[in-house]
Amino acid sequence: MNHHQKNIKIQTTGKSFHDITAKIKSIVAESGINMGLCTLFIRHTSASLVIQENADPDVLRDLSNFFSKLVPEDSKSYIHDAEGPDDMPAHIRSVLTQTSQQIPITQGRLVLGTWQGIYLWEHRDRSHYREIVVHISGV
Amino acid sequence: MNHHQKNIKIQTTGKSFHDITAKIKSIVAESGINMGLCTLFIRHTSASLVIQENADPDVLRDLSNFFSKLVPEDSKSYIHDAEGPDDMPAHIRSVLTQTSQQIPITQGRLVLGTWQGIYLWEHRDRSHYREIVVHISGV
Amino acid sequence: MNHHQKNIKIQTTGKSFHDITAKIKSIVAESGINMGLCTLFIRHTSASLVIQENADPDVLRDLSNFFSKLVPEDSKSYIHDAEGPDDMPAHIRSVLTQTSQQIPITQGRLVLGTWQGIYLWEHRDRSHYREIVVHISGV
Repeated sequence: MNHHQKNIKIQTTGKSFHDITAKIKSIVAESGINMGLCTLFIRHTSASLVIQENADPDVLRDLSNFFSKLVPEDSKSYIHDAEGPDDMPAHIRSVLTQTSQQIPITQGRLVLGTWQGIYLWEHRDRSHYREIVVHISGV
Repeated sequence: MNHHQKNIKIQTTGKSFHDITAKIKSIVAESGINMGLCTLFIRHTSASLVIQENADPDVLRDLSNFFSKLVPEDSKSYIHDAEGPDDMPAHIRSVLTQTSQQIPITQGRLVLGTWQGIYLWEHRDRSHYREIVVHISGV
Repeated sequence: MNHHQKNIKIQTTGKSFHDITAKIKSIVAESGINMGLCTLFIRHTSASLVIQENADPDVLRDLSNFFSKLVPEDSKSYIHDAEGPDDMPAHIRSVLTQTSQQIPITQGRLVLGTWQGIYLWEHRDRSHYREIVVHISGV
C-alpha cells in the first residue's frame, strides 16, 4: 500500500476550462500504483474541478453560457462585491460544481470513460495561479 | 490493507433513477472490508450518481421535474445539438450533480443514513448501458 | 497504513452554515496520519457539506439568498410536501451541492487553502441533529 502526493499549479486565463487530463495521467504513471484511487483537490473557492466531455469543444462553450445565465453577474443581487462583479458568482459556481474529484485506477490507469476529460474551471475574469493537490493511494 | 474493484453495468430506461444501493451493498459484503471507504465512479458525462431519499418516490419525481425546468431542452439555447435536444442538457445536469460518490464503511457496512439510497440518474431520453467502477479500500 | 473513523453530531439552528473546520482539523491531528486522505460524509439528504470562503460572512449570506431564489419554497411546484414547504427544496439543494467532501492530508494537516472553510449547510427550517462520518486513511 502506497500513498503519493503531488501539487500542481495552473495559470488560468480568466473564465475558461483548462484540460488537465494529460498532466494527471502522467502523475498516476509516475506513482507506480496499479490499483487504487486518485483524488484531486483544488485549494480555492472560485474555481472548480469538473469531469466533462472531451470530444466537442462546443459542450464546454454551452456549459459556460448556461452558468453565465444561471448565476448572473448582477451586483445588485449580492452583498459581497468588494472584489468585483464576477467574485460572488464565482463562489456560487464553485458550490454548484466540485472542489474535488475521485477517479479509481485500474491496471495503472485512470478508469476515465472514452469521452471524459478532467478540467480546471476558472470562474474569475482575471488570470489566477490555481493549486491542485493530487493524492494517489493503492497497491 | 486491501483494495477491491468491481465494474457494474446498468441498462437504463431513458430519463430515470435506478436504485443501485443493494448492488453496492453486496459488493461491499463480498470485499470482506470491515472499516474503509467505498468510491463509486460513473464513466459517462450524461448520467450521474446521486444519494437521495429512498422513502417517498415523489422526491425523485420532484427532482426530475425541477431539473427539467432548470435545464430546459430548448435547442436554441445550445450550440452542441448534433445528438438531439436532450444531449447538452444531460451534460449540464451531470456537472450540476456528481460523477462520483464516496461512502465510508464501518463494521463491514456502508454508513448510509436510514433514508439514503444510491441512484444512477440517467439524463438521456434513450436507454443506455452505463458503467460504474466500484472501488473499496480498507482493513 | 491506517484507517481512522469518528462520528460527529452537530445540532443545527434551521437554515444556516455551521463551520466545522476546527473540529475536523482536531480529528485529523488525533489520527496521527501524516500523509493521506480525509473523507467527510453526511448521513442525510436535506443538509450538505460544502467548502467555501471563510473570510467574509457575506459570501455565505449571498449563497443562502441565491439558493432561496434558485429553489423556491413554492408548494405548488412539488408533489412531495407532507413534511412542509421547506422539505422538497432541501432535497434539491442537497443534490445541487455535496453529501461528501474529500481533502488530502500533507504533513499531518488538511491541505485546505487559506480561504477555505468546511461547512455543514442545513437546508431545513427547524433545528436538526446531523451526523457526519469522518474517515481518514494514510500513513
